Amino acid sequence: MVLLLSEDSSFVVEVRKGMLHTKDGILDLGNLKKKKFGDRIKTHLGKEFKIVKPTVNDILEKKLKRLPQIIMPKDIALILAYTGVSSGSLIVDAGTGSGFLSIFLASYIKPKKIVTYENDRRFVKMARENIKNSGLSKVIRLKQKDITKGIEEKNVDLVTLDMKNSEKVVRNAYDVLRLGGYLVVYSPYIEQVISVVKEMERKGFSNIKPVENIVREWQVEKFARPKTVGLMHTGFLTFARKVK
Amino acid sequence: MVLLLSEDSSFVVEVRKGMLHTKDGILDLGNLKKKKFGDRIKTHLGKEFKIVKPTVNDILEKKLKRLPQIIMPKDIALILAYTGVSSGSLIVDAGTGSGFLSIFLASYIKPKKIVTYENDRRFVKMARENIKNSGLSKVIRLKQKDITKGIEEKNVDLVTLDMKNSEKVVRNAYDVLRLGGYLVVYSPYIEQVISVVKEMERKGFSNIKPVENIVREWQVEKFARPKTVGLMHTGFLTFARKVK
Amino acid sequence: MVLLLSEDSSFVVEVRKGMLHTKDGILDLGNLKKKKFGDRIKTHLGKEFKIVKPTVNDILEKKLKRLPQIIMPKDIALILAYTGVSSGSLIVDAGTGSGFLSIFLASYIKPKKIVTYENDRRFVKMARENIKNSGLSKVIRLKQKDITKGIEEKNVDLVTLDMKNSEKVVRNAYDVLRLGGYLVVYSPYIEQVISVVKEMERKGFSNIKPVENIVREWQVEKFARPKTVGLMHTGFLTFARKVK
Amino acid sequence: MVLLLSEDSSFVVEVRKGMLHTKDGILDLGNLKKKKFGDRIKTHLGKEFKIVKPTVNDILEKKLKRLPQIIMPKDIALILAYTGVSSGSLIVDAGTGSGFLSIFLASYIKPKKIVTYENDRRFVKMARENIKNSGLSKVIRLKQKDITKGIEEKNVDLVTLDMKNSEKVVRNAYDVLRLGGYLVVYSPYIEQVISVVKEMERKGFSNIKPVENIVREWQVEKFARPKTVGLMHTGFLTFARKVK
Repeated sequence: MVLLLSEDSSFVVEVRKGMLHTKDGILDLGNLKKKKFGDRIKTHLGKEFKIVKPTVNDILEKKLKRLPQIIMPKDIALILAYTGVSSGSLIVDAGTGSGFLSIFLASYIKPKKIVTYENDRRFVKMARENIKNSGLSKVIRLKQKDITKGIEEKNVDLVTLDMKNSEKVVRNAYDVLRLGGYLVVYSPYIEQVISVVKEMERKGFSNIKPVENIVREWQVEKFARPKTVGLMHTGFLTFARKVK
Repeated sequence: MVLLLSEDSSFVVEVRKGMLHTKDGILDLGNLKKKKFGDRIKTHLGKEFKIVKPTVNDILEKKLKRLPQIIMPKDIALILAYTGVSSGSLIVDAGTGSGFLSIFLASYIKPKKIVTYENDRRFVKMARENIKNSGLSKVIRLKQKDITKGIEEKNVDLVTLDMKNSEKVVRNAYDVLRLGGYLVVYSPYIEQVISVVKEMERKGFSNIKPVENIVREWQVEKFARPKTVGLMHTGFLTFARKVK
Repeated sequence: MVLLLSEDSSFVVEVRKGMLHTKDGILDLGNLKKKKFGDRIKTHLGKEFKIVKPTVNDILEKKLKRLPQIIMPKDIALILAYTGVSSGSLIVDAGTGSGFLSIFLASYIKPKKIVTYENDRRFVKMARENIKNSGLSKVIRLKQKDITKGIEEKNVDLVTLDMKNSEKVVRNAYDVLRLGGYLVVYSPYIEQVISVVKEMERKGFSNIKPVENIVREWQVEKFARPKTVGLMHTGFLTFARKVK
Repeated sequence: MVLLLSEDSSFVVEVRKGMLHTKDGILDLGNLKKKKFGDRIKTHLGKEFKIVKPTVNDILEKKLKRLPQIIMPKDIALILAYTGVSSGSLIVDAGTGSGFLSIFLASYIKPKKIVTYENDRRFVKMARENIKNSGLSKVIRLKQKDITKGIEEKNVDLVTLDMKNSEKVVRNAYDVLRLGGYLVVYSPYIEQVISVVKEMERKGFSNIKPVENIVREWQVEKFARPKTVGLMHTGFLTFARKVK
């Protein structure tokens, strides 16, 4: 996959036969085969694009279909920061939704395997397509199952939950986590945080820590100030570790 | 390396001959050779520890020497989130300091190479030791050089700066970054943000975005509320991309 | 003045002859003379309004003309909270702008006198009208003068500044403040905060404290969460006291 | 009352016979009778204090006994900002606690009357003393009664609640508020906010708005940055208006 970059627009495309229609003309993608990163390519109207290696974010932003409520990169990154999960880990995730959380985690850290549970047929279809488009079909396994009925994996390093009744999965998560493993629950509403924390305590989790992660943008023009309006809230993240 | 875990204390140790002195007695580390993850081990006073696979964070927290002003995991994770840097990337970093930023990035994403510049001899020694103790000597290369004098790498995916006069490195960073690559500057003070943004604009960077990342902890006991006192500020992160 | 209140709209009107045109019909304001608070009145189309005593905020929100950049009630209230200024105080203010800061302070605390300086003729006109409409002409005195040229009042309890070069007024403010009096500077940009703090230190002010005041709204519907988007920044407030 | 001010300490004292013992010597308060604001006075060891008019905050900070959990000036000020309550208003408050909320509101705005309900005998004693020491006995009336049993006032402009079961007072508050009047509830915990909002909706309140008010301090020394550690949370304020 390559990133076609101009100052006012960009595209992530696969190098294969076909035409890309842009507002500045048509690009023959077949021509990309003869090019290398750093080269340029022109539409039939003369608009020039640079051919660039895409980052993980470029691919995810341009190629994936999204649901309206989506966990954001800042929140996914905090999961890495606070659990130390890394390449070689076994991760269980639910509900899949559009697959964003699984795909981002897989893209950043190259885990051994992410198994993601989704019970809603409509999401399964979208997620399957997104996983395929992100090129991660070997790392991410999607199961169309109800995770509240049981988790089939064992010796799991990290369980991530972004679903309505996460508190119903806390017991199962505890059972399948390895000693020293983490459970992380993402939830937009504070009532969910409260239910989940109480269930985590009942089931024996340690180091329980619910947090909000607020990124505040600044503008630096003639003078500097925080931007007037911004994202005040996405969701709460609740972390817990299995220690005993 | 293994994590020895009890409910009130934990240690990261290497599996080799030697004695570990804890407040609850002495552990013969040689005995770890016959054990596997999930087993238990006892001190000569009978205190039991579980033998657990350490996460990246366990290793970094327990084995590294720190400087007082250190970039925190939440801020390092945001660099991943906003640049999409991933395995296979070439990263240039300065100043090394204790090596935390390099070591965390290397631990999370397994880049091809991180080259980190440090001009202060006292830090070089500490960083070298930390890189060795984190087992990342093959990925991280430490150069005792003044990065304001020049960057020797080419076609770099990400340049990270955590140093006093970051604005003096912006031009060099631009020159060695690949198209589509990122510069990220960490700075505790707002004056540094302002200088860096203005220099980024002069040198032609795009998508310039200075942010603060505030993590707010909640306590959920009988009732729930944000913790009364907390970290209001660590540092600003300024992101910029080379697009033209 | 009375507040005419319905569930979907409200008006602040004076009790005098005249017609009020609303989207739900015309109200004969002359009829208000025979009514008292708690009574109802109807438009010619039958829409009913309750006749209510307006609060200070009702009057200010409905009767004053605004400039785009306006200091907000939350920030004005913090001036009260941190200076303890109260009825009987002498306050000097600049620049007047639309008069909001003066009018709110006067409305809340009934000071002896607020003298407000404005050098720009266009603002003077708007402010004069706003002061008249708020019924505070006896408390607020508007001077069309450049406050950087000098402050004519003596023994002042509080000086408030919301203008471009506030740092140029710090020396004059110090000279006219009584011992124990306060200077408060409102400024959208951080560079202004920095200049002002440094000038305050040079001129001998104590207890210098720059702050941001962030109000975060929650939504409580089926479940509770902070509102997704909100005001991240209005301006910085810098407080200082004359102690020696 | 006068404020005795030196660069390293300050006292609020009444002008009457008596001795003030400071760490820098003894002051004969009787001598204050012959002095006026701006004069100086010395202890028997030669330490000099300036004689200054105290602000409302000086008096409250120096003269009042406090309970550990106290509503802060920033939060009290927001009540003014969002309700527009002003001089001449009738306010009902509960529970009194140490009396801080009543005393601050009374000090800032000179209402016609604040009636404050407290059921706990221990607090009543402390509050009575604080009200007396603040010189507001004519404005604040303290009733040792359980406000959940009923509110005796009528045509109230503002009801403020800072107590455990505020939701039990919402109905009574609605009944005694004038049209256009406000109910404001202060609560440390989010569960209280949720109960109160739901009860406000059931009882017919409009414009229901729960908020947090976060004041973030900056330090401006050689360079500027937000202070590292600070107050992340005091309490939530929930506003509602009686419109129908």
